[in-house]
Amino acid sequence: MSDITEGMLFTDHYQLTMAQLYYRSGIAERPAQFEHFFRSYPDYGMHQAGYCVTAGLEPLLDWIGKVRFGSDERQALASFQTPRDTRIFADDFLDWLCEVGGFGDVTMRAVPEGRVVHANVPITVVEAPLAVAQILETPLLNHLNFATLIATKASRVVEAAGGGTVIEFGLRRAPGFGGNVATRSSLIGGAVSSSNVGMTHSLGVTPVGTHAHSMVQVFMAIRGGELEAFRAYAETYPDDCLLLVDTIDTLDSGVPNAITVFEELRRKGHEPVGIRLDSGDLAHLAVRSAAMLDAAGFADTRIVLSSGLDELTIWQIRNQIAVEAPQYGIDADTLIRRLVHGVGSKLVTSDGDPSLGGVYKTVAVAGDDGSWVPSIKISDTPEKVQNPGAKRVWRIYDERGFATADVLALAEEELDLDAPLVLHHPSLPGVTRTLRPAEMSRAEPLLDTVLDKGRRTSDPGGIEEARSRRERDLAALDPGVRRLVNPHRYHVSLTSALSELKRDLIAGYAT
Amino acid sequence: MSDITEGMLFTDHYQLTMAQLYYRSGIAERPAQFEHFFRSYPDYGMHQAGYCVTAGLEPLLDWIGKVRFGSDERQALASFQTPRDTRIFADDFLDWLCEVGGFGDVTMRAVPEGRVVHANVPITVVEAPLAVAQILETPLLNHLNFATLIATKASRVVEAAGGGTVIEFGLRRAPGFGGNVATRSSLIGGAVSSSNVGMTHSLGVTPVGTHAHSMVQVFMAIRGGELEAFRAYAETYPDDCLLLVDTIDTLDSGVPNAITVFEELRRKGHEPVGIRLDSGDLAHLAVRSAAMLDAAGFADTRIVLSSGLDELTIWQIRNQIAVEAPQYGIDADTLIRRLVHGVGSKLVTSDGDPSLGGVYKTVAVAGDDGSWVPSIKISDTPEKVQNPGAKRVWRIYDERGFATADVLALAEEELDLDAPLVLHHPSLPGVTRTLRPAEMSRAEPLLDTVLDKGRRTSDPGGIEEARSRRERDLAALDPGVRRLVNPHRYHVSLTSALSELKRDLIAGYAT
Repeated sequence: MSDITEGMLFTDHYQLTMAQLYYRSGIAERPAQFEHFFRSYPDYGMHQAGYCVTAGLEPLLDWIGKVRFGSDERQALASFQTPRDTRIFADDFLDWLCEVGGFGDVTMRAVPEGRVVHANVPITVVEAPLAVAQILETPLLNHLNFATLIATKASRVVEAAGGGTVIEFGLRRAPGFGGNVATRSSLIGGAVSSSNVGMTHSLGVTPVGTHAHSMVQVFMAIRGGELEAFRAYAETYPDDCLLLVDTIDTLDSGVPNAITVFEELRRKGHEPVGIRLDSGDLAHLAVRSAAMLDAAGFADTRIVLSSGLDELTIWQIRNQIAVEAPQYGIDADTLIRRLVHGVGSKLVTSDGDPSLGGVYKTVAVAGDDGSWVPSIKISDTPEKVQNPGAKRVWRIYDERGFATADVLALAEEELDLDAPLVLHHPSLPGVTRTLRPAEMSRAEPLLDTVLDKGRRTSDPGGIEEARSRRERDLAALDPGVRRLVNPHRYHVSLTSALSELKRDLIAGYAT
Repeated sequence: MSDITEGMLFTDHYQLTMAQLYYRSGIAERPAQFEHFFRSYPDYGMHQAGYCVTAGLEPLLDWIGKVRFGSDERQALASFQTPRDTRIFADDFLDWLCEVGGFGDVTMRAVPEGRVVHANVPITVVEAPLAVAQILETPLLNHLNFATLIATKASRVVEAAGGGTVIEFGLRRAPGFGGNVATRSSLIGGAVSSSNVGMTHSLGVTPVGTHAHSMVQVFMAIRGGELEAFRAYAETYPDDCLLLVDTIDTLDSGVPNAITVFEELRRKGHEPVGIRLDSGDLAHLAVRSAAMLDAAGFADTRIVLSSGLDELTIWQIRNQIAVEAPQYGIDADTLIRRLVHGVGSKLVTSDGDPSLGGVYKTVAVAGDDGSWVPSIKISDTPEKVQNPGAKRVWRIYDERGFATADVLALAEEELDLDAPLVLHHPSLPGVTRTLRPAEMSRAEPLLDTVLDKGRRTSDPGGIEEARSRRERDLAALDPGVRRLVNPHRYHVSLTSALSELKRDLIAGYAT
């Protein structure tokens, strides 16, 4: 990690000033626990998510494993001045930082990538010396917030596509090399591939893409026209021929020219792959193009749609196709499964809600006797009052095998599914729900230990495992929670013991 | 550049399939011109920008200078298969790519960073062998779209702050290492600093930040309370003491405790820096805190505001302060100049419109005789019909020295300010505006040559020069165009000659 901008100093300045203060106060090495969670699901204005899909953990663990406070970092910090031209960071503190070096003392429990997660449930729990845990806040949130946001958006887009497939096309409008994070997260969220060559390949997936309008324009300028461009494409890619048909006029020029070239290909023993539509009324054009392709004997070709797509647009396209396809003798379901949605800007930026408000909060600090002292942050808004203390987290599955609630418990608690389980609302005192043993088939711990004093203790797995986790979790998620618009709220609850601790701490705080 | 995901393959797959097609068709090395521009200003829903601020050029030029097709890239491309399990990229093409190597044949003209730019004006013009120019599309747009988007948002936030200052605080919710792009672009757009340690330092700016709620929480858990936390902070940073006062209760606890510590500091010969407010009614709390600080003799301290800020919120805070400050005996203008706005998520993601639709279009290709053949892309939407051909771009300043129009001309045209200049609307035929010589003080060419056959020909300059360009351009921009809401539309026009070429090409296209 040679670049100072992507190493240990990829953090907020106040993490380092706090670290020095803890050092001066003799508590820099005091064990502390921080929890990362988000308070509300992405809200896209006209619609809000009912769940998130985790992503970003493995790249975070890779980053943690390689960054160090080295001489470049030390030199940078030593150069920072106060308004009075005195140094901000003193040599003894910088010596200590360089001695600590990196994140070798961090123990982390986390929800693996690709899992469905909910608001106010700890997704990542860090236990580390106070100053080290503090410095980790910004890079941890940076790695997890954006990746989870995009995996969530991708999952919604994939759900909207029904039986159709989704490809990520957004690199040109993605945020710098953050575009690679968007590509990876889109794949975790259910996109089958991406146009991003390097990142897709590095994940073991084959990138996709054929040609742009510019190719047709070039042929029109110096080599004939659309038909000549299509022929050149078919000659170069006889086994991978997918043609963009809207440069001139989709139904009058593009599709007929594509069919001409497809027939030529077939005579030479090759089967064409399909067409792409990038402008106009995509649903109508998909139906009309499908009718023309079917009539010409190319019913197995794919129809790729692109241009400003997001989950609501795709959902509307499906609805329009259901109405319009029969008018042209086309089976709507077959057409919907034949569609490939190329989703770009609105996926890689999470259009409508471009940031996830994941936070990282102190929940416990070791007291003078070494035992955990729970910490709480009060707010005028009850939902923002933190759930205090070291915890365990369980997902309860109902008698059908569907997830019915996530339960936050004290670290020392065990759940007994043979007795009724009382679930407490996290912010409304006295609001409870009781699950009878017959209503609970399984309690699954959500957090895995992924770092033990800096050592990786989980198998990172590949992108495919993360993708499978999402599919499994979605299959066990209530359809009401999966709904695109106005989803049902999944229950996140506290055990009686955690609820009591929270109430006691709030009461003590008020005095 | 060892990582395959950030090198030559940081592009869309179809750029490479098109490149191979051009290679097969014998036109890969044919000179071509592409233009980068955006069609519409960021539209944040309730408000739209009237101008953009360019950013991203210098990092793009750095990237162009270092990436190469090497053995890793070749191996990746050789592994890609069609659906029929044949190779997509053949060895002769890969040999050619590796021989070309990188972007050593690219000539580029561009608008320098920090300048005010407008819709449909070429910001970057690439002249290169067709296949090379094509491959450059995605990384060029990736580098310029997001950076320009964020510099534009920052500029709006800074304009909203009036005499107050703006700091970028968004790293934790920024898109991965794209957060560094956001930090750099925010500085170009007028933020004075950022909390992002590594990136800010690498640009020669000192990062800023003091402490979070977590520090106060830790002290409350194991070391007393807020006052003890503030004292520890003041002892550690006597010359840089800025305290976050809203962990418990801003007016009842935070500000009084801060004043106690400030008085102790002053007795020891140090002057405090200020306070930060991160929740509640920020305008009201700023007024009340200012009154308390003034009464205690700390009228020179800064008041930092943070929490969900964007340009409209800051504008509303200023308006509220103008009404409310006098009620507490506070001069509103003095307070507004005393404010520091820490702007995070909504700045680094350009909340409201998280992607800039910058495009990159073929405008000319060398014909068989070597002369430029202009290229055009037609659309049913007149505003989306491209302005064809190789061009020059001028900004015309009026008799007051204000920018009055950007003019697109043919490459061989010279503007004569001693004769009336007829400006043609880019998409409405017959709509013209004529500038008399007395109305024109200056015509400034907007595009500088920055690469000549791969060689840097401009002085990159530092971030400060980009910041100065923005300030100069804004000073010469009509206040109506600078307006936050419903801005006046700046004129972008074509010369008579370019307008005629466009009309002729559209007519030829229709036949």
